Amino acid sequence: MKRVMLTVAYDGTAYSGFQVQENARTIEGELNKHLSELLLEDIKVIGASRTDAGVHALCNVAVFDTNARMPGEKISYALNQRLPEDIRVRKSKEVEADFHPRRCKSRKTYEYRILNAEFPLPTKRLYTHFTYVPLDIGKMQAAADYLIGEHDYKSFCSIASQAETTVRTIYDLQVEREKEEIVIRVTGNGFLYNMVRIIAGTLMEAGKGRWEPEYMAIILRAKDRASAGPTAPACGLTLTSYEFL
Amino acid sequence: MKRVMLTVAYDGTAYSGFQVQENARTIEGELNKHLSELLLEDIKVIGASRTDAGVHALCNVAVFDTNARMPGEKISYALNQRLPEDIRVRKSKEVEADFHPRRCKSRKTYEYRILNAEFPLPTKRLYTHFTYVPLDIGKMQAAADYLIGEHDYKSFCSIASQAETTVRTIYDLQVEREKEEIVIRVTGNGFLYNMVRIIAGTLMEAGKGRWEPEYMAIILRAKDRASAGPTAPACGLTLTSYEFL
Repeated sequence: MKRVMLTVAYDGTAYSGFQVQENARTIEGELNKHLSELLLEDIKVIGASRTDAGVHALCNVAVFDTNARMPGEKISYALNQRLPEDIRVRKSKEVEADFHPRRCKSRKTYEYRILNAEFPLPTKRLYTHFTYVPLDIGKMQAAADYLIGEHDYKSFCSIASQAETTVRTIYDLQVEREKEEIVIRVTGNGFLYNMVRIIAGTLMEAGKGRWEPEYMAIILRAKDRASAGPTAPACGLTLTSYEFL
Repeated sequence: MKRVMLTVAYDGTAYSGFQVQENARTIEGELNKHLSELLLEDIKVIGASRTDAGVHALCNVAVFDTNARMPGEKISYALNQRLPEDIRVRKSKEVEADFHPRRCKSRKTYEYRILNAEFPLPTKRLYTHFTYVPLDIGKMQAAADYLIGEHDYKSFCSIASQAETTVRTIYDLQVEREKEEIVIRVTGNGFLYNMVRIIAGTLMEAGKGRWEPEYMAIILRAKDRASAGPTAPACGLTLTSYEFL
């Protein structure tokens, strides 16, 4: 028996999120199905980040146990022959038998992309959230600065969350313009349910000039989801980096 | 009666090209259908660039004649309410009654994007052509330089073409790296059938080191499609700019 870690990239457009569900296509479901067919065992992966429906990833992580003889590092090549083209395993390797991706300390980066232009661009529609309302990235960055550090992010967490604690650490939170796109890039030790999308929705309110940057301190103190901005749509969100510390 | 010009962006993934065909979804077909329903007339647009199946555009051009009272510049807003989300009209305006986009002198730019990485990225698969073979962009640019200017591009034209002359002018042809993508950006006064895709396929052969850059001169002189490289896949190609001179 060995434990194998996969680094997985996917276009979340066609999936009901990472986590397996009955009667819905999910990333975990596809990995389980194709790994089981490849290795002729009943494989159940453990995912690191259970991304929502429509969210994308460049490098999510999943582990599974197998008795198969195939060397861990070869599994990615064989699995990619079977997976649909909107899921690709970038790397596979053997890890310690007790390695559990959700119980390890980690450092994750998400990007939230906003297409801020007069008209939506069809070729960007699946990977950005479109708004024609002008956004002031200086104000967005000033607001973002209030959220960096260790904080209780209860205001930035959907009520459905079952997290034990809502304290997390954001190491970095940058707002940058790349041509007609605005990129919100956030790195932290973990994120609550919908946290990055609520941060994006809240920073957009600051960018529109509706809320002054200082208002972020009040939102954090309120510890109330209703005080923050809307949850920005899933399509703009991509998990771009996942490191174990 | 007035003539209206549309600037149209589209994701070509789901379409059998620009030009109308029976029993196939096309950009022209969608524009005709939704314009006719909007303006309550039988509208037939004239397209500027009849892009192939799977090719994308940021700014293709189409014109049509209408007796409708709706001001030309308002049509884009009304039409976008009806069009599928993978087609967007960025601008509409009234033009001279004799303006014909294919009979005007023009300057067009296409981009061909290659994802040159170890593994394909699912979120790039619709808008880039993937290859894991390392490409030397210095050699690609040296090869590209032979193609700039006024030349007979018969070797870079699919045999199915019915063009009267195969002489065209390429004003600029640049090969650049943008992170893991290689972008071939070509500007010219017109392009033959599949010409940009054959240029891309040929420059890739130079980038792989199979053909020395100087071989481009031999290909041009041969005036034979068989002498050039393969036609690169449609998904990597986007019409990015269209100017009338």
